[in-house]
Amino acid sequence: MTSRIAVLPGDGIGPEIVEQAVRVLRAPALNLDLELTEAPVGGAAYVAKGHPLPEDTLALAKQSDAILFGAVGDWKFDKLERALRPEQAVLGLRKALGLFANLRPAILYPELANASSLKPEVVAGLDILIVRELTGDIYFGQPRGVRTLEDGPYAGERQGYDTMHYAESEIRRIAHVAFQAAAKRQGRLCSVDKANVLETSQFWRDIMIDVAREYPKVELSHMYVDNAAMQLVREPKAFDVVVTGNLFGDILSDEAAMLTGSIGMLPSASLNASRQGLYEPSHGSAPDIAGQNIANPLATILSAAMMLRYSLDAAPAADRIEAAVQAVLARGLRTADIFEAGTTRVSTSEMGDAVLKAL
Amino acid sequence: MTSRIAVLPGDGIGPEIVEQAVRVLRAPALNLDLELTEAPVGGAAYVAKGHPLPEDTLALAKQSDAILFGAVGDWKFDKLERALRPEQAVLGLRKALGLFANLRPAILYPELANASSLKPEVVAGLDILIVRELTGDIYFGQPRGVRTLEDGPYAGERQGYDTMHYAESEIRRIAHVAFQAAAKRQGRLCSVDKANVLETSQFWRDIMIDVAREYPKVELSHMYVDNAAMQLVREPKAFDVVVTGNLFGDILSDEAAMLTGSIGMLPSASLNASRQGLYEPSHGSAPDIAGQNIANPLATILSAAMMLRYSLDAAPAADRIEAAVQAVLARGLRTADIFEAGTTRVSTSEMGDAVLKAL
Ligand SMILES: CC(C)[C@H](C(=O)O)[C@@H](O)C(=O)O
Ligand SMILES: CC(C)[C@H](C(=O)O)[C@@H](O)C(=O)O
Repeated sequence: MTSRIAVLPGDGIGPEIVEQAVRVLRAPALNLDLELTEAPVGGAAYVAKGHPLPEDTLALAKQSDAILFGAVGDWKFDKLERALRPEQAVLGLRKALGLFANLRPAILYPELANASSLKPEVVAGLDILIVRELTGDIYFGQPRGVRTLEDGPYAGERQGYDTMHYAESEIRRIAHVAFQAAAKRQGRLCSVDKANVLETSQFWRDIMIDVAREYPKVELSHMYVDNAAMQLVREPKAFDVVVTGNLFGDILSDEAAMLTGSIGMLPSASLNASRQGLYEPSHGSAPDIAGQNIANPLATILSAAMMLRYSLDAAPAADRIEAAVQAVLARGLRTADIFEAGTTRVSTSEMGDAVLKAL
Repeated sequence: MTSRIAVLPGDGIGPEIVEQAVRVLRAPALNLDLELTEAPVGGAAYVAKGHPLPEDTLALAKQSDAILFGAVGDWKFDKLERALRPEQAVLGLRKALGLFANLRPAILYPELANASSLKPEVVAGLDILIVRELTGDIYFGQPRGVRTLEDGPYAGERQGYDTMHYAESEIRRIAHVAFQAAAKRQGRLCSVDKANVLETSQFWRDIMIDVAREYPKVELSHMYVDNAAMQLVREPKAFDVVVTGNLFGDILSDEAAMLTGSIGMLPSASLNASRQGLYEPSHGSAPDIAGQNIANPLATILSAAMMLRYSLDAAPAADRIEAAVQAVLARGLRTADIFEAGTTRVSTSEMGDAVLKAL
């Protein structure tokens, strides 16, 4: 059966890195039955159609089995009102498709240990999975806005406000994803919250403890978010799987990714309850180097592999792509972001060529 | 004129580290005119008086020119209802005294460069100041709680919720503190928010831009909190002063502190509009090593120095304490947390002795 893939390249380096991932997915060696359809998203879509997430693009995404996403955002759109800014496409897709489970591995490839700003002994062999809830929390909570206060100590002043919240079933479903992931790994799950201050967090913690009873083989621990931000720096290898809400997950998954020093290598998946998913590199659109054919396409290629594994039931093909990426690293090929003396510097498209050849 | 200092040792290692700071403040060499009054706080106060912040302790704090605070918290109080837990004393003092400006330096002493989990070249000479707003944001925002939803997609379910908010004058006053601090340093201020998602953050950013017009010599930049969490790991020395809200500041100030690897060295100040302040080490109560006379008292001693500088107008005495700490480090004295081969391991009280002697 043909799988339908929506290809949304976006802004900045998005098009050039997605191009390489598409070449890999189309590789005769993989022999996949895919129908790939491209559509504009982000700033590119705003320019072409007046909206960062045009109706046609959203409709295509909804009908697809999976979405291969590049990146969105460019300084030139910073002055637009918030509803028209590129990032809104990301938030809109997550919400419309119910992509509540964001899986963000932070893996340090042995060949790239030097790229990290941390000492090699602290990060060598790093392999953490951050499970971030992606459709709830303060990201979408109502009410929100700017109002003029009528009473209290700041009466007469304007106030900006937002609402953080999580309903029980929202916490349960992400808990199940995280416990299942931990069960397949080292069996250790750390739930991160701020239960000493926030009601939402205390509720989150209570539900995590409740769900844990269904997974007696997984060891659940809890950590405050401030401490988690510290422990990730101090001893990142102490973590196996981390589960947390949308806002804390935004912060910690980026921190964890940067521990590796090679964020250009890190894929991500955002899944809904029917295993439909959006797959994108963990890094951004890097408009400063766009169009120069120097960006690292490997995170996007590895995102395509995640797509095959999680949404298309094609784990063998995913394994082959991942092995091909390992092989090109072992051969010493490096894009500019991960280049070091003694390795061979290649362009975006040359890296794509090399992965294709290794397949 | 005699300055009144409330001394609140708290839990865990609190009493033993505060004891050393008190010895330093009483050193004849400094010749300070201080009236030091001790009172229980945190778990110790709960045990003694049934509340983590007893009325007498709060009254003493309010009447004092400054508070020297140890640390609170111990696992044995984890099961108490939130209102009785040790941390509530911290929140209660901040709110009751209006301690809105938290200054958290992250400084790496050259002698301790090896203590960091980051590469020496990434952190050597690190000197960042994080200015965290401390009495607003989602920490105190109402409404908050757990409710049963009446409609919407999760009707009938329980939901945990909290409110994030900032009024205009709350943002203005912390902005002024941060701009003034930046003006005395390298003149670079980075305001951290999540303006691409949160209304509170967009409002925060607008006010920061407005206040910036009064400080033409300070260069203001803006960064999203997820990116800030990454850049602190990637290139921490690129920051000078960071200003941010209560929640993001909680996370980023701990992350920044841990970059140094020697959080046992880092003091903090929490000030109100009348320069009354609470001074405490950046680290916690470490109940696992309490009572063993091995904790590092230097962060508390340096907090006492900050107290002299910010609340008691005694900058020369502060300078002398800081120089004494530098001298004991230069002599190679180290408590267990910062010990390495080739240095001399000393106890908590021996470290206090050494600072006194160096004065
Ligand atoms: C672009 C932005 C809205 C988004 C987020 O905060 O979720 C991004 O930072 C991410 O993590 O995917
Ligand atoms: C104890 C806790 C409430 C507190 C906070 O979150 O502010 C602590 O983490 C801190 O940073 O001082």
